[in-house]
Amino acid sequence: MARRRQLYEGKAKVLFEGPEPGTLVQYFKDDATAFNNQKKGTITGKGVLNNRISEYLMQRLQEIGVPTHFIRRLNMREQLVREVEIIPIEVVVRNIAAGSLAKRFGIQDGTVLPRSIVEYYYKSDELGDPMVTEEHITAFGWAAIQDLDEMMSLALRVNDYLSGLFLGIGLKLVDFKLEFGRVYDDQTDEMHLVLADEISPDNCRLWDVKTNERLDKDRFRRDMDGVEEAYQEVARRLGILPEGGPRDMQGPSVLQ
Amino acid sequence: MARRRQLYEGKAKVLFEGPEPGTLVQYFKDDATAFNNQKKGTITGKGVLNNRISEYLMQRLQEIGVPTHFIRRLNMREQLVREVEIIPIEVVVRNIAAGSLAKRFGIQDGTVLPRSIVEYYYKSDELGDPMVTEEHITAFGWAAIQDLDEMMSLALRVNDYLSGLFLGIGLKLVDFKLEFGRVYDDQTDEMHLVLADEISPDNCRLWDVKTNERLDKDRFRRDMDGVEEAYQEVARRLGILPEGGPRDMQGPSVLQ
Ligand SMILES: Nc1ncnc2c1ncn2[C@@H]1O[C@H](COP(=O)(O)OP(=O)(O)O)[C@@H](O)[C@H]1O
Ligand SMILES: Nc1ncnc2c1ncn2[C@@H]1O[C@H](COP(=O)(O)OP(=O)(O)O)[C@@H](O)[C@H]1O
Ligand SMILES: [Mg+2]
Ligand SMILES: [Mg+2]
Repeated sequence: MARRRQLYEGKAKVLFEGPEPGTLVQYFKDDATAFNNQKKGTITGKGVLNNRISEYLMQRLQEIGVPTHFIRRLNMREQLVREVEIIPIEVVVRNIAAGSLAKRFGIQDGTVLPRSIVEYYYKSDELGDPMVTEEHITAFGWAAIQDLDEMMSLALRVNDYLSGLFLGIGLKLVDFKLEFGRVYDDQTDEMHLVLADEISPDNCRLWDVKTNERLDKDRFRRDMDGVEEAYQEVARRLGILPEGGPRDMQGPSVLQ
Repeated sequence: MARRRQLYEGKAKVLFEGPEPGTLVQYFKDDATAFNNQKKGTITGKGVLNNRISEYLMQRLQEIGVPTHFIRRLNMREQLVREVEIIPIEVVVRNIAAGSLAKRFGIQDGTVLPRSIVEYYYKSDELGDPMVTEEHITAFGWAAIQDLDEMMSLALRVNDYLSGLFLGIGLKLVDFKLEFGRVYDDQTDEMHLVLADEISPDNCRLWDVKTNERLDKDRFRRDMDGVEEAYQEVARRLGILPEGGPRDMQGPSVLQ
């Protein structure tokens, strides 16, 4: 395969120019960061699993009518996606208090929220991804109010669907983060929003229904053991653990 | 005068039972705090000046149709107000970047914002008054969406009026904080919102138009000199410096 031009290296993924205009290749690394980059490390096999988990979830969401950037998986660590103009807002949906919300409001971790809460964070590593409101987003021109309405209603649909899907495999969807981007729609000659980035245990909190065991990146944040196994367990329960099991996940990227 | 029953002692004021049901006496102290109570001190004469400044501004706002809790000033340090059910949300309106907004978004202090921005903070000393969104406020039941709409539109009217008033006396209204409360309206048999608490250099940032000199509590926060003089200067420009000038302001409260 011809060498691809690298466009961006992020904390967990690398973006390459795609084979056709308007496409990108998303390469999933094993790198993990937490607390605004203060903690860095590696979770062996994470890239392979997140590539597979995100493919699966984006496909299911596409089927229920949530537009996504996902086109197809190319290999163990890469997927082809539509290039989008990323809206620099992280949309967080929370069902159960955990992490920064539990701290901000002095609520016990694990408390079921009175209803699902949608939050926005401004995507900026330098500023530490500050929480923002519709006021900041619209005043600074990061997104229009129509975009926010669309993002919120898509995020709530994703929450409904994924809450059900995860409950079906014995996991509580505590909270998760989404990113959206704008694409040009040649059918309507207008821009519309699609779900971009990834959906994986890197940006979802997933707790076992019976034991409340955390099967997500919080294990890494909190220096718990079994980080790799947690990601594998999520894939296993989704029925998509790559053939050959965990062994397959450590292959160097050149062997893709 | 009969001794009044004290109901609450806050950081800057004390609330006493009022002479009639449904009224309170707000007593203005010289105490000042900053950075969520980490810094404490006294600004001599502040209570007298804030009592007078808040009286003046609440009266002017009442005249333009913004409902307030203010009834009348009783003496140098006390004013009679309607008792309200305080909504535990601080409404902040910002015209120019300063303080926490400048820090949160890495914007230079003094940058004119693309438009006025309204923010909400949850009133809780223990939690450090965290910034919150409509989502948190409505999910946790601190106010209804109708309350928020009313608070925001009243806050924007107050901003328009006070921006003009302060500009007229050579001051830029950089930002300010309001509190609202619910009162029972026997005319309509419904609850409605009124502006409560105080409007003073304790909760407004006021910069001299020509020199950008700060004539507000930031002088105290930043250990600058001339704190007392700044409060006096605001009252002087508003044409309401108590007769006898600053000397009058230090009279002990028993001589009210
Ligand atoms: N379809 C897409 N088109 C363009 N950019 C995308 C797309 N999907 C995700 N991105 C962006 O690519 C980056 C993914 O790499 P990641 O390691 O998550 O980066 P970061 O450290 O910035 O979060 C993110 O910045 C994300 O916003
Ligand atoms: N009209 C009112 N009725 C009832 N409470 C009020 C009214 N106006 C202001 N308050 C409340 O009284 C207190 C004023 O004292 P302050 O020293 O500012 O207290 P705090 O330290 O809580 O800010 C505030 O808690 C404020 O919310
Ligand atoms: Mg990312
Ligand atoms: Mg106060």
